[in-house]
Amino acid sequence: MARVVVDVMLKPEILDPQGQAVQRALPRLGFEGIADVRQGKRFELEVEGSADELDDAALARIREMAETFLANTVIEDFTVRVEESEGATA
Amino acid sequence: MARVVVDVMLKPEILDPQGQAVQRALPRLGFEGIADVRQGKRFELEVEGSADELDDAALARIREMAETFLANTVIEDFTVRVEESEGATA
Repeated sequence: MARVVVDVMLKPEILDPQGQAVQRALPRLGFEGIADVRQGKRFELEVEGSADELDDAALARIREMAETFLANTVIEDFTVRVEESEGATA
Repeated sequence: MARVVVDVMLKPEILDPQGQAVQRALPRLGFEGIADVRQGKRFELEVEGSADELDDAALARIREMAETFLANTVIEDFTVRVEESEGATA
């Protein structure tokens, strides 16, 4: 199984109220030095086949799926990347 | 400005209804071969100072902030990593 990660973030010019709320609360909680916070979505897709079998056509299909289904490209940017399958944990 | 990315995902053993809804819809939209979808949050933090100035103590503070404020560690895992500052766009 290959893991493909799709990150969806608001475009830089779009106001991010959630991110701003987090950023404004941080000093009150004692966390200084964070100039800006942007919040978005992360999708982890488990794709059949191994990472090496993920050819350009398969990645193009996933990009097309992300563009039509996971992101609203009017206000959001997205990135698609293949990640090693064992999830990085805290 | 250094960019630190905090990814927050539901723990593997926690049911992810949003991810399941996406995964079930994909075949109807003509996207086959996606065995599982997990949806989580991505935070992009712009931290004062450059990436090289981000020492272990600063990263430990950010990890502490993520643990107490960005993730619910009862049901979520999180990862913290330093990323190059120019955002990867679609």
